[in-house]
Amino acid sequence: MKKAFSLSIPLLFVFTLSRAQSNNSDTTRRYIKVPSGYLMVLRQGDDILKKIEEFAISEKIPSANFTAMGFVNVQFGFFDAATKKYIPKDFKNVEMASMPGTIAWQDAKVSIHTHGVVGDRDFNAYAGHILSATVSTGSLEVMITPHDKKLERKFEEPLGANVLQLGN
Amino acid sequence: MKKAFSLSIPLLFVFTLSRAQSNNSDTTRRYIKVPSGYLMVLRQGDDILKKIEEFAISEKIPSANFTAMGFVNVQFGFFDAATKKYIPKDFKNVEMASMPGTIAWQDAKVSIHTHGVVGDRDFNAYAGHILSATVSTGSLEVMITPHDKKLERKFEEPLGANVLQLGN
Amino acid sequence: MKKAFSLSIPLLFVFTLSRAQSNNSDTTRRYIKVPSGYLMVLRQGDDILKKIEEFAISEKIPSANFTAMGFVNVQFGFFDAATKKYIPKDFKNVEMASMPGTIAWQDAKVSIHTHGVVGDRDFNAYAGHILSATVSTGSLEVMITPHDKKLERKFEEPLGANVLQLGN
Repeated sequence: MKKAFSLSIPLLFVFTLSRAQSNNSDTTRRYIKVPSGYLMVLRQGDDILKKIEEFAISEKIPSANFTAMGFVNVQFGFFDAATKKYIPKDFKNVEMASMPGTIAWQDAKVSIHTHGVVGDRDFNAYAGHILSATVSTGSLEVMITPHDKKLERKFEEPLGANVLQLGN
Repeated sequence: MKKAFSLSIPLLFVFTLSRAQSNNSDTTRRYIKVPSGYLMVLRQGDDILKKIEEFAISEKIPSANFTAMGFVNVQFGFFDAATKKYIPKDFKNVEMASMPGTIAWQDAKVSIHTHGVVGDRDFNAYAGHILSATVSTGSLEVMITPHDKKLERKFEEPLGANVLQLGN
Repeated sequence: MKKAFSLSIPLLFVFTLSRAQSNNSDTTRRYIKVPSGYLMVLRQGDDILKKIEEFAISEKIPSANFTAMGFVNVQFGFFDAATKKYIPKDFKNVEMASMPGTIAWQDAKVSIHTHGVVGDRDFNAYAGHILSATVSTGSLEVMITPHDKKLERKFEEPLGANVLQLGN
């Protein structure tokens, strides 16, 4: 175990470096303005939630709905009401068949809530709350419909979940 | 069996009373107007189809498309062409990963047609035509895009199915 | 085998003729204009990708997003990175629970990219990239949101996949 660990440091370093370089050198535009909002095309290796977050900050999005499809690696999480934690599971190289979500704000940070349905090479489907996702060998096409009101998510008790607030 | 039945009457009464009270006291706004339509956030215990129906009547929606995601209890139904009836199945405490639908009218009543994909705690996915659904421990976020034409659904023979009519 | 083959020619002819006739005689309108785009209702026997393609040509759609739901026969395909070919699988008489897609252009032809999630009579879900699909006993409701920029898909190497181009 110890040997494996000491080996993994330079490997991780190389991998991180290569990822960073590829992201730095890839200056391809990721989104354009369209009449109904924004059309985003994320590319191999992109961190999906991070890219949507950066977009929301750059374009000063008060709130938005989006829907996406593509080819991804995804980590789903199921919220365990007893432990109040997400139980995660990874799915690699799967078709993202449907991925609806919303963009809002929480504690001055972008708050993305998104679910997804993926299909593996035998077309078996898996669905859940998305904890993280990257684009695999392909792309992710995202249609974003912004709203004009700044919306906040708030952790509600005794529910134990974040809920999008519409005001009263 | 008989004892169980006699016991269930007061239990059902208490449950119904508590549901009704919680619904009456919860005056939180369920939707707001946004440039592209309406953003709806349904809350724990809400009857999803009923809330969308009430919305359609209140806002005089001629017809609309919508898409939703959240955490639900849902009853799917598969239409049996032989018996002309839906075979139902319930899924409790599941992530609603994708729920597209349309709002139209039929016999002067709101007609909602909606399908859904849900994921259980192991992320296994199930999909089908939605007969009924309530919000579980969480919320349901719904984006509604209204149209300007009043559209009707009509039962078509020999198809044996309701079809959204676009006129001729 | 030889006898079966000689028999299949007239049978195929009759089947093709009957399909052509039914499609010719069904002049029901397939889509209408709505404020946010187009609402399409495809009907039993319609070739879904062909109808969307014909729509894109007729209405001179520069590019668009769409989302659909209904009752279909569908052929999914999973892209095998080794052979660079899709491995296909058919699903008959299934609920199309969610079907997001985009319309663009490639080599002066309409290029449709669409994924789907279907549910069978036991509500088991299957998901993937759609190679072809027809409407089964029911309909398919499609909401199409057009964009104002003509967008092209381009086959990118070394990725080995078609990617929607947003310009630079």
